[in-house]
Amino acid sequence: MTVKVITVGEDILGANEEKAKANKSRLDKHEVLTVNMMSSPGAGKTSLIMSTIHRMKEKVRIAVIEGDVASSVDADKVSEQGIPVVQINTAGGCHLDANMVESALNSLPLEDTDLLLIENVGNLICPNAFVLGEDRRVMISSLPEGDDKPLKYPAMFADTDVVLLNKIDLQPHLDFNTDAFKKMVTGLNSDVIIFPVSCKTGEGLEAWFSWLESAVKGKKDR
Amino acid sequence: MTVKVITVGEDILGANEEKAKANKSRLDKHEVLTVNMMSSPGAGKTSLIMSTIHRMKEKVRIAVIEGDVASSVDADKVSEQGIPVVQINTAGGCHLDANMVESALNSLPLEDTDLLLIENVGNLICPNAFVLGEDRRVMISSLPEGDDKPLKYPAMFADTDVVLLNKIDLQPHLDFNTDAFKKMVTGLNSDVIIFPVSCKTGEGLEAWFSWLESAVKGKKDR
Repeated sequence: MTVKVITVGEDILGANEEKAKANKSRLDKHEVLTVNMMSSPGAGKTSLIMSTIHRMKEKVRIAVIEGDVASSVDADKVSEQGIPVVQINTAGGCHLDANMVESALNSLPLEDTDLLLIENVGNLICPNAFVLGEDRRVMISSLPEGDDKPLKYPAMFADTDVVLLNKIDLQPHLDFNTDAFKKMVTGLNSDVIIFPVSCKTGEGLEAWFSWLESAVKGKKDR
Repeated sequence: MTVKVITVGEDILGANEEKAKANKSRLDKHEVLTVNMMSSPGAGKTSLIMSTIHRMKEKVRIAVIEGDVASSVDADKVSEQGIPVVQINTAGGCHLDANMVESALNSLPLEDTDLLLIENVGNLICPNAFVLGEDRRVMISSLPEGDDKPLKYPAMFADTDVVLLNKIDLQPHLDFNTDAFKKMVTGLNSDVIIFPVSCKTGEGLEAWFSWLESAVKGKKDR
């Protein structure tokens, strides 16, 4: 975590929210549906983004912002698919913020974009408090992390629109109770939509693609 | 993440290090080997602590500090084994700090403890910057998280004494390249010891127990 010296009285979250509103207005103007994707390290954010690009790129004009503490391996993968992408390296920072996203927006062709996927830093805690200007929040939670994660990291589960429950192909090898997991998540967040998926086998992904396509259409039809 | 308003010029990390030194002196006085255990959410910190308790509690007097954003499920499991345990709930905070550990030490029987296991908050970024007064740092990284984690979260891998590579029982179902992982970790940290283990099958755990027993003995023999 980058530790900054902060002026007394400065309201970090308030300042971030103002900037996020400005990002949102800008994205609204261009009718870009913007999705903030959050998860633990290794839950499958990048795999999910790659699957989404492969399946939807002929129909929907996608752009991507990749947030990482270090490296640009994820952005390289996206770029190989001919998708506009900006890598944000937080240099130790544990989450993206609205300022970083503003900088990235300056380098993306918003007028030619229908869907902006933002891959946040892998972290189940800090990204939740920082809105970026997104329309929707999507969390990825994966079976190997265990079914108790909503109990132990409740805030992010409570604030998301969608939970993608990834790596369901591993179910036979794990003691993961899907019913208990769903019950905990809906207990925290009665409006959430849960999609069980496997990026490896493709199982369940069509429901996610349909939801996303509807949301993109909804943004245009406002 | 809890966002605090901070007095200008306050050196958070410096203040934390001072407090950590005081914790270390106190633990040294009682010859308590103290291990700071860090990982992503769901990598297996609690399972590893439970396995260690089961295997070692007859020989070594263990105490535990459990750090979590919310809940006390982990502390409850430890307590059932008759082990002294303190739960620290960080109320949204993304890491333990030396102040929190100091409070916990006040509730533990240090004079009757040989080994203190501290389970940090599940997070691959923030806990790294905050020393607690530990003798050793141990990271748990699990196969389902992927073999690229050292590249994407380098700081924690660079600063640890031991990497426990957990969930090796899942290898047949994953594309995880153990050689590539080890090469990346030793590239960041040439002194690190890597133990491939499975808390589910017990494979590899004896090497970890032996290392830990030696370290406990080493602390007494100083």
